[in-house]
Amino acid sequence: MIRIGIYGYGNLGRGIECALKQADDMELVAVFTRRSPDSVKILTEGVPVLHTSCAESMKDKIDVLVLCGGSATDLPEQTPALSLSFNVIDSFDTHAKIPEHFKNVDENAKKSGKVAVISSGWDPGMFSLMRLMSGAILPCGSDYTFWGKGVSQGHSDAIRRIDGVLDARQYTIPIDAALEAVRSGSNPALSTREKHKRECYVVAKEGADLKKIENEIIAMPNYFADYDTTVHFISMEELKKEHSSLPHGGFVIRSGKTGWQNENSHIVEYSLKLDSNPEFTASVIVAYARAVARLSSEGASGCKTVFDIPPAYLSPLSAEELRKNLL
Amino acid sequence: MIRIGIYGYGNLGRGIECALKQADDMELVAVFTRRSPDSVKILTEGVPVLHTSCAESMKDKIDVLVLCGGSATDLPEQTPALSLSFNVIDSFDTHAKIPEHFKNVDENAKKSGKVAVISSGWDPGMFSLMRLMSGAILPCGSDYTFWGKGVSQGHSDAIRRIDGVLDARQYTIPIDAALEAVRSGSNPALSTREKHKRECYVVAKEGADLKKIENEIIAMPNYFADYDTTVHFISMEELKKEHSSLPHGGFVIRSGKTGWQNENSHIVEYSLKLDSNPEFTASVIVAYARAVARLSSEGASGCKTVFDIPPAYLSPLSAEELRKNLL
Repeated sequence: MIRIGIYGYGNLGRGIECALKQADDMELVAVFTRRSPDSVKILTEGVPVLHTSCAESMKDKIDVLVLCGGSATDLPEQTPALSLSFNVIDSFDTHAKIPEHFKNVDENAKKSGKVAVISSGWDPGMFSLMRLMSGAILPCGSDYTFWGKGVSQGHSDAIRRIDGVLDARQYTIPIDAALEAVRSGSNPALSTREKHKRECYVVAKEGADLKKIENEIIAMPNYFADYDTTVHFISMEELKKEHSSLPHGGFVIRSGKTGWQNENSHIVEYSLKLDSNPEFTASVIVAYARAVARLSSEGASGCKTVFDIPPAYLSPLSAEELRKNLL
Repeated sequence: MIRIGIYGYGNLGRGIECALKQADDMELVAVFTRRSPDSVKILTEGVPVLHTSCAESMKDKIDVLVLCGGSATDLPEQTPALSLSFNVIDSFDTHAKIPEHFKNVDENAKKSGKVAVISSGWDPGMFSLMRLMSGAILPCGSDYTFWGKGVSQGHSDAIRRIDGVLDARQYTIPIDAALEAVRSGSNPALSTREKHKRECYVVAKEGADLKKIENEIIAMPNYFADYDTTVHFISMEELKKEHSSLPHGGFVIRSGKTGWQNENSHIVEYSLKLDSNPEFTASVIVAYARAVARLSSEGASGCKTVFDIPPAYLSPLSAEELRKNLL
């Protein structure tokens, strides 16, 4: 049995807990929280909730520690620090800062002889793998990544920070015409506005200036200014009833040419349609946590990403079973 | 530069040659054929065509030998034999015999200290990888593989063996209603007949009994009896004009549940739409040939499959470049 600790118990931590319930070769041994442990109720019976300050004392009882903090401030500190004592895995998703994060984690994990996997999940993660593999197979071609339809937490948060807004949910929606153009093999050049649109459901404070809020959203640089954005004002009741889940998904499409004169077209498409973004992300992480345990038991150390891991390591099945049943 | 030899020059061998033209880090150094070398014209200027009996003499000039023979009789002999002298890669696709083929190749490759990759391509190959990875991520779920729309060579050959048939082309076509049922997340149980239909374009000899040919096709066990099959009789001219290319493709879909009570559904879909089946298969093989060269240079030996190979090894880019640009 691979003994797992969860470090941080929000949506993602709860997703890890659910995914572990489906993994016969893994068991949850502890959940760590920065909150008062008494205030945190988990789903699994008989598993202790401990303060993060106690993690160190559990280091011999945990094979892989799954870090469920945020990429903005938690993981840049936690992953390098905890890789000094644990095999760790995170879902660090600030794409531009991955090289720096990798370096920090790799140094410490090599020092401690532990294995760390960073940036697992679906983007970065499965989508990255598809970009790599499809690009290696079809070097003469173009990559397209579309996200959604799904809730973007970052964009929802950005709306919530606007004066007069009580709560908000933002959906990123790929534009069908762009998807179809890509699938046609015509290798279109697509602007940001042509690829995705944004739909916002906003609960405003009583008496707030709705037109002002709407204008502020639509004009917000980086987040909304480059997109066609629609704003709907709804009641808190409707938000809770209709927009409380966290669906997401997306598409990675490679359109490439082969043949002596590049005369043949090929489309490779990978898509996800997810009821729960944090639960699917967690399911990917748990499969890679299995790989972390195996790499560590083989004597590996240092930081790895999804690019470095043989796919067989994700599965609880033996190499013989995989070849016989899945190849 | 990775020096590549092509062993067998049919549709697949020519596809390898085209894929190598797009690979800046690889070069074709020889093509081997069982035919008279004088009778074989290849596309690349300045590369020798040699008889297969000369392969052994070239073993120090080739980093990876790509075996382009058939799975029925060529590869079961050639891959084990040639792995005694070369790093090799094949696209052995008789799923039921993969364990036996693996064992034979592994023994010899370990003896010689060479690396062999078997069963690369897209099914087995990329589709196998998707089944493995999606199943490891969503253990509570079902797998669905659909093939087509595309030309099945085995089924076309089966029709050609019928008395009175001059030539034939068979298309395997996935049934839309089945695809949609799978994508809905309902985890349907689908019969063979519900998943695919078969469409046959047949050129008959003058005066042949068309009704008899049609009945023989439709009733043929294993190949057609379990499917809804349509037979069209056409002229040789039309066959050549409309049905001379070898398109193919397909879908691997995983439908799975997550959540404490399995309350959330997820769909992971990988699909291929290929103008040329042999050229895409060849493009996959060439990416894995790169991995063979790298594994060998690291001192590995023995037989591997797509399951064993870190995805980064498929790419000519460095680990740093991959993390920076594709993760």
